[in-house]
Amino acid sequence: MSQFLKVKTAQEVLDIVKIFNPLGAEKADMEAACGRVLASTVEAPEALPHFDRATMDGYAVKARDTFGASETLPALLEISGAAAMGEEVTLQLESGGAVAVPTGGMVPQGADAVVMVEYTHHLDENTIEVFKPVAPGDNMVKVGEEIARGEQLFPRGWRLRAQDVGLLAALGVTEVAVYRRPRVAIISTGDEIVPASSAAPPPGKVRDVNSFTLAAMARQAGAAVSSSRVVPDDLDELVAATRQVLDNNDMLLLSGGSSVGARDFTLRVLDYFHDAEVLAHGVAIRPGKPTILARIGEKVFWGLPGQPVSALMICLAFVRPSLAVLEGQSDLGALGGYSLKALLQRQLPSVHGRTDYVPVVASAANGQVWATPVFGKSAMIGMLAKANGYVIIPEHVEGLDRGSEVEVYLFSR
Amino acid sequence: MSQFLKVKTAQEVLDIVKIFNPLGAEKADMEAACGRVLASTVEAPEALPHFDRATMDGYAVKARDTFGASETLPALLEISGAAAMGEEVTLQLESGGAVAVPTGGMVPQGADAVVMVEYTHHLDENTIEVFKPVAPGDNMVKVGEEIARGEQLFPRGWRLRAQDVGLLAALGVTEVAVYRRPRVAIISTGDEIVPASSAAPPPGKVRDVNSFTLAAMARQAGAAVSSSRVVPDDLDELVAATRQVLDNNDMLLLSGGSSVGARDFTLRVLDYFHDAEVLAHGVAIRPGKPTILARIGEKVFWGLPGQPVSALMICLAFVRPSLAVLEGQSDLGALGGYSLKALLQRQLPSVHGRTDYVPVVASAANGQVWATPVFGKSAMIGMLAKANGYVIIPEHVEGLDRGSEVEVYLFSR
Repeated sequence: MSQFLKVKTAQEVLDIVKIFNPLGAEKADMEAACGRVLASTVEAPEALPHFDRATMDGYAVKARDTFGASETLPALLEISGAAAMGEEVTLQLESGGAVAVPTGGMVPQGADAVVMVEYTHHLDENTIEVFKPVAPGDNMVKVGEEIARGEQLFPRGWRLRAQDVGLLAALGVTEVAVYRRPRVAIISTGDEIVPASSAAPPPGKVRDVNSFTLAAMARQAGAAVSSSRVVPDDLDELVAATRQVLDNNDMLLLSGGSSVGARDFTLRVLDYFHDAEVLAHGVAIRPGKPTILARIGEKVFWGLPGQPVSALMICLAFVRPSLAVLEGQSDLGALGGYSLKALLQRQLPSVHGRTDYVPVVASAANGQVWATPVFGKSAMIGMLAKANGYVIIPEHVEGLDRGSEVEVYLFSR
Repeated sequence: MSQFLKVKTAQEVLDIVKIFNPLGAEKADMEAACGRVLASTVEAPEALPHFDRATMDGYAVKARDTFGASETLPALLEISGAAAMGEEVTLQLESGGAVAVPTGGMVPQGADAVVMVEYTHHLDENTIEVFKPVAPGDNMVKVGEEIARGEQLFPRGWRLRAQDVGLLAALGVTEVAVYRRPRVAIISTGDEIVPASSAAPPPGKVRDVNSFTLAAMARQAGAAVSSSRVVPDDLDELVAATRQVLDNNDMLLLSGGSSVGARDFTLRVLDYFHDAEVLAHGVAIRPGKPTILARIGEKVFWGLPGQPVSALMICLAFVRPSLAVLEGQSDLGALGGYSLKALLQRQLPSVHGRTDYVPVVASAANGQVWATPVFGKSAMIGMLAKANGYVIIPEHVEGLDRGSEVEVYLFSR
């Protein structure tokens, strides 16, 4: 493999991410399916509703019996029964008849509309006056009007939300096929890295941050983090650690050791795997330029910068969509995340040909939302904790002026 | 308790929600703390960084030794050593000296700046030329420059994000005090309701939807759903079911039976509990007007409409903030959720004094985002599955014209 840094654009990397196949499918109970991605199209096994239902309290009628009715000339209808909530109504409505129905109750056969109770008056025990005409279909939903039997409910690749699970429940679909959750292993390397639990690292050493930020983000993206550990910046140990986790995981995140230089171990680790292929080495993005994307067989291998802010931004920009691809999500556009418009509080320089991810604090002042970049002299994890989102300066823009309208992508919480 | 429907505004209900206290605190491992809310302020137990660190590859120097340096008149400095990554540097930099440091490496005592390697040239093995002056502090971070010892990292009530956990890791804070997750019990009632697993409900019966949508939303909000069941619309059974789950839960969601009418069981259930207090009965909101908020001792009791779309929208509008209050989250504003601006695709009527929650499909067309309401003749769960967000028509607005700019609050997935 060439060690030459042929930098790819952010978009090129996002395109490469899509060559990986979704993981296998498995069955999931409807209850556990919220947030999972469907591995096959779901069709309605029955119609919804499966009986004609009133959507208002009133009387089920034949609409034509009310045509021309008015305050001064009400239609007179004979009460031929009442529908109880949750009960089947077996009687057949005849012309001139009316059946009392509650909201959600069954509309009897022969009726084609419901008159709201507000527009009726009891003349006597058996007769009502109707003051307003109804059209066929008014104040009721017919069998299959909401969902027809066999109608596609959700396509393959759809990530189920709370209301989607509700629709599955309504139709009695208690189990669905979903893609398996990606299993992710995380390795932090670097001679300066000690475990986060270290009581008092000596000068020169710093605690492992990336294991925790990457694990948190992977979990937010629906993955299961199977292991995370600190490995010394030693080729043999890195190869052994990679080999150890590869079989039981779908993705490996190795942070540190990905830049070009004396300690550029990540590429050399890949050399030890005969089915490894480097797909990208270097991305025209700041921070995070020395990012590596590779495959080892069907497994996804990310070499991330060791610098915590860079690692986190690359995780947001690329690892998250990469996980969504393994999860089978078809609409990656929705991953751009949630955003709001803001005015840039100060000028942001950039370079043509490079995509910049700049953490900002979005806050309201003077009736306007302002985005204040939190990058100081160096991107530090402490500054990122102060940010609530980030701004993307696209590849073909040479910086943004103060007051420019920008889209702030919000960090999830 | 009065059964009279004294309708409260949406804002009044949101204010009442805040009278509940956060649940008790517990310890959480840093690894499991992402998404949890801090029960006490977290301060930095040590400085970050805890040693002077280079932010660029180069040479640690005394800045004043470089003053006046230029391409034509470089400063000459003597190489007095090199800092290895992750190692303590014990030597003291003297005037006229330079120590090679890698990015992230330790800057030795006596140095107050780092010259980037690009602006230096090796004259011989022991001497470098510096072509550009540096100011004190350039290309390095001093002890405590990122975070001072004792500095507040996060206030009580802060919900931890991925990068926040990273900052805790950097400082060796492996455990934090967080508020306990709310335990939620869900009861669906109604004579028409059968469990979702029912194979073929007879005409008149419909499957339970609310247990599933409410459970999914409660889980998304960080709660644990301890039980959910369908209970017949029978006072004794509802009282027994409520009593059974009350002790082991912090919140009870009872859907169905909350409207004024013959089957208005929810309020009568509350009558059986001596420490029950109705805080709101009826909200000026559509859908979901017949909502009940009560307390039974310290427990939160929500009586939600049985209609699935109404129950779901009330859950979004009120139950979610109510859970966040129990979780101790101080900034409820952030719960408004993520939103985007769109133009209304058709006119939306409303009524002065009522807040409307209208599900919409937000989609891009002609270079503009349009919000298309999905309410047809009735709000059906199938239609909600087609929506990707909702629009709020505020209390004091009598409808919105086609083409109005609206904020679309996105459903989470």
